[in-house]
Amino acid sequence: MNYTELAPQYVRDIAPYQPGKPIPELARELGLDPADIVKLASNENPLGASPKAIAAMHEAIASIALYPDGNGYELKSALSQRYEVNLANVVLGNGSNDVLELVAHAFLSPGDKAVFSDHAFAVYPLATQAVGATGVSVAAKNYGHDLNAMLAAAIEHQPKVVFIANPNNPTGTYFGEIELMGFLRALPQNILVVLDEAYNEYLSDEFRFDSVRYLKDFPNLIISRTFSKAYGLAGLRVGYAIAHEQVVDMLNRVRQPFNVNSVAQAAAVAALQDKEFVRQTYLLNQQGMEQITAGLRAMGLSFIPSFGNFVSFKVAGAAHIFRRLLELGVIVRPVANYAMPDFLRVSIGTEQENAKFLSALEQAIGESK
Amino acid sequence: MNYTELAPQYVRDIAPYQPGKPIPELARELGLDPADIVKLASNENPLGASPKAIAAMHEAIASIALYPDGNGYELKSALSQRYEVNLANVVLGNGSNDVLELVAHAFLSPGDKAVFSDHAFAVYPLATQAVGATGVSVAAKNYGHDLNAMLAAAIEHQPKVVFIANPNNPTGTYFGEIELMGFLRALPQNILVVLDEAYNEYLSDEFRFDSVRYLKDFPNLIISRTFSKAYGLAGLRVGYAIAHEQVVDMLNRVRQPFNVNSVAQAAAVAALQDKEFVRQTYLLNQQGMEQITAGLRAMGLSFIPSFGNFVSFKVAGAAHIFRRLLELGVIVRPVANYAMPDFLRVSIGTEQENAKFLSALEQAIGESK
Repeated sequence: MNYTELAPQYVRDIAPYQPGKPIPELARELGLDPADIVKLASNENPLGASPKAIAAMHEAIASIALYPDGNGYELKSALSQRYEVNLANVVLGNGSNDVLELVAHAFLSPGDKAVFSDHAFAVYPLATQAVGATGVSVAAKNYGHDLNAMLAAAIEHQPKVVFIANPNNPTGTYFGEIELMGFLRALPQNILVVLDEAYNEYLSDEFRFDSVRYLKDFPNLIISRTFSKAYGLAGLRVGYAIAHEQVVDMLNRVRQPFNVNSVAQAAAVAALQDKEFVRQTYLLNQQGMEQITAGLRAMGLSFIPSFGNFVSFKVAGAAHIFRRLLELGVIVRPVANYAMPDFLRVSIGTEQENAKFLSALEQAIGESK
Repeated sequence: MNYTELAPQYVRDIAPYQPGKPIPELARELGLDPADIVKLASNENPLGASPKAIAAMHEAIASIALYPDGNGYELKSALSQRYEVNLANVVLGNGSNDVLELVAHAFLSPGDKAVFSDHAFAVYPLATQAVGATGVSVAAKNYGHDLNAMLAAAIEHQPKVVFIANPNNPTGTYFGEIELMGFLRALPQNILVVLDEAYNEYLSDEFRFDSVRYLKDFPNLIISRTFSKAYGLAGLRVGYAIAHEQVVDMLNRVRQPFNVNSVAQAAAVAALQDKEFVRQTYLLNQQGMEQITAGLRAMGLSFIPSFGNFVSFKVAGAAHIFRRLLELGVIVRPVANYAMPDFLRVSIGTEQENAKFLSALEQAIGESK
């Protein structure tokens, strides 16, 4: 028999997430030296991780044969102090990807709906489909979330959940506090809003605002954050959400009891204390963003102004350019699966990595003319 | 409004998994010195982890800011060599708990059924309920799986999935190769069988058999294994399943793209090569099992003969004895939630840990007389 037929149709229809190509994989495929490859494909932190977090990781290995703390007491305590919320308002995830799936597993069933934007992070439609719920994708405005249109769609379709990202990946687009307030005020409070702030730490002071304090007025808000980006812990898998305690209670019921490993928990506690590392990360990103966007402009390429640690730019023959860049030892990210087939997304790296990318891009474009 | 009402009834009805109490939590609650506490509550490896695995962990930290390999190439290659199967027959999990949930997410929907045994591992009913499917629990025979009764239940209820554990936790019971063969031969092949072998490495040579070679004749078989027990990597979260490639394909569609962190992947590859560590683990467990069962017998206590790295024993006033043991700095596991309210489960530790447990148990029983 065909064993795929035992799975429901909505599982069979899933097109799995396409991650950035790992360096060892490219090295194997093209016979390149891994040391010569630059990966600017997954919005990782080019500074690595905080030295304090790294020390905590090495220390945590001493008790690796013991199960992690399933309640995540130390990390949840640190987060609850940082955000001035109760332990019962915090739930931990195996990366914020896990947080997004917990929301889907806890609140979405076959027949339910979820609303998100065109060009929004791929895991929103994926997590929705994986539980047999129906996704409603709303047309974007200048590649960004059109919150008015999303509000109208929510009122029309009555979803259980709306996913919004600020800034959004892969577009880098951003909406301000006043827009968010208007959206939350107008949205019925029986619709949950996942506010995905994975890239929050890359916002400058003038754009960053404290979304957690809106929980009081908007108990339907679920704020999702990650340690994978500015904190540089992508390899460890740790993210979290802050939400109403009844929402957190439901998320915890579908959470795997040991979803966050003990090295990740220890590292995240330490990383949270190292504000200087996050500041350096922010500054390097600002400089790199200037370097890369100046380079793109010099080549006459247009791009979507980005508030994250990456930028999506338009280039003729994007699929071909992507492959040619691989051959030149530079991994960027195709975004055709985001309905952006003419774009490529590049993460901001170190000055040298950015320079290597710009030079390889110039070569690839020159060859294809 | 009450936000729990947004979750489906089957989510609201979940009673979350009760993990073994972590040492720091007990230390906080009772004001004890963590160094004085012995935890024999989660079937962890008292030897820790393989030195080779520990070296691999420290090394993996150097690239922790990069996402893990979502395809798990190195680890799946090592496993496919070990078991002589293709890469397409292996799926990795964030612990084998994740593997069990992947099966539920990929194959069970509201209206579907899953069959398991009374006193079987708690995650089978939990994972079934969390997707809104219906669990059918079959009466046990001498606390072990009654495979004939499970077969009859499967033919009657036509479940999508049957979960069987060998050895089973928390009972330690075991069924032999001939029994398993009979069960698989009689079961319709459109019913998936999850054979959970988390404790396989604790079986002596006369009892251990190679279940993977049955995949050829029984493509409905999903063999689940873990690095959390004999390999001593519980804190890192890594397990896997070996199954038909169509089954693996469906599991991968609901798998989170980066479900296994990069430290875990590196450690598991190294751990798999250290057969001497697994042998020492097995030998220590054999000695400890003799020490603990002899001690239980000396106190006149009965227990379920165990093939794992733990043993469940019967004791009057089990709930009280459990709490008294906590005060004496010994954490064991109550199993009332397994319909075994008169039992406690103790993991096999080092000789000193076992001695401390036996002495504390003797004291607790003496006081309660």
